Amino acid sequence: MTDKGRFISLEGSEGAGKSTAMNAIASVLDDWGIDFIKTREPGGEANAERIRELLLHSEHLDDNTELLLMFAARNEHLVKTIRPALEKGIWVVSDRFVDASFAYQGFGRNIAWSTIEYLEDWVVADTRPDLTVYLDVDPLTGLKRAARRSAKDRIEKESIHFFNNIRKGYWQRLEQNPQRIKRVDANQDIQQVTTDVMNVLNTYREQLQS
Amino acid sequence: MTDKGRFISLEGSEGAGKSTAMNAIASVLDDWGIDFIKTREPGGEANAERIRELLLHSEHLDDNTELLLMFAARNEHLVKTIRPALEKGIWVVSDRFVDASFAYQGFGRNIAWSTIEYLEDWVVADTRPDLTVYLDVDPLTGLKRAARRSAKDRIEKESIHFFNNIRKGYWQRLEQNPQRIKRVDANQDIQQVTTDVMNVLNTYREQLQS
Repeated sequence: MTDKGRFISLEGSEGAGKSTAMNAIASVLDDWGIDFIKTREPGGEANAERIRELLLHSEHLDDNTELLLMFAARNEHLVKTIRPALEKGIWVVSDRFVDASFAYQGFGRNIAWSTIEYLEDWVVADTRPDLTVYLDVDPLTGLKRAARRSAKDRIEKESIHFFNNIRKGYWQRLEQNPQRIKRVDANQDIQQVTTDVMNVLNTYREQLQS
Repeated sequence: MTDKGRFISLEGSEGAGKSTAMNAIASVLDDWGIDFIKTREPGGEANAERIRELLLHSEHLDDNTELLLMFAARNEHLVKTIRPALEKGIWVVSDRFVDASFAYQGFGRNIAWSTIEYLEDWVVADTRPDLTVYLDVDPLTGLKRAARRSAKDRIEKESIHFFNNIRKGYWQRLEQNPQRIKRVDANQDIQQVTTDVMNVLNTYREQLQS
């Protein structure tokens, strides 16, 4: 019998350095000889990527619609990509998962926490991440970094006030899930952030083995 | 002050004769000199029509995803089309609305009734139809009629068993909402169905005026 794979999610707002952290996680898992897939939200599956297009490029999408589309994409991602991998003993590393909905649609768009929890219980059910690496960056720092990239999508065109709310949303999830979510100070230079992310993974592995 | 418009929905499964009934409703409202719009679900608004495309033409869409996309489209439809019209005193006639989710995703896909009710309370809130005309057709009769049209979409490619379940779903909604939902026997010839639909509207108007 194969052991089930582990599910790691990576969270953080714009310019937190998720791409670099994703590479760091991948190289650690490679080192350990773990079979894993890298994926992302919204997206990570053909239908979900089509929903992602709607999310990022629709005009004047209502906030509730945004949340419903996020969970529609998440459900496809879970059913077609995440659960089948975990069942086969393959680890899954996802660039964003359900915590992002609490941060972006909950604190960012003011949708009731209880509504998102209802959708989480229904759609995510027991496929919760085993470990979440949260890159916590000051919004100003993050947006300056993100500005170096060329085109902004719909969600990145939001105000600093919006991104301060996102951060508060992540903090609330962190407070509610201290065992699962590990905060990394993403205001530090990229080298230090990479080291800290690797340390989080090494600590997680020690816990698994003890 | 303008009176709020009235919201009429038209329900029924494949081949029930919704297009003809829609025309009958429109001619009655025209006769009364009512300002109204005709719309449809899923769709009825630019973003919602894009979601409709995903719904009708995606490969292997999971059942929960289907329900979430239906409500995402419904939310856009409500926010951008239905509520603004009603506020201006314009009547809205929609080819399908929330009862279809209970029939298709509830009884058709076996999604919990309580989950759909949760989404209804959250998304539809108090924008419930004032009157629903339900065209009740035997699935075999309906599918034979629908087969005369050329291409079948994803949902029409279902079995007779599926459409029998849809019908049971509509019956359950009818039982729960006898004041709002009016059943028309759509197994009759088109002339009689049209007459019955017009009678439902005339009875509704008498109630409004009494």
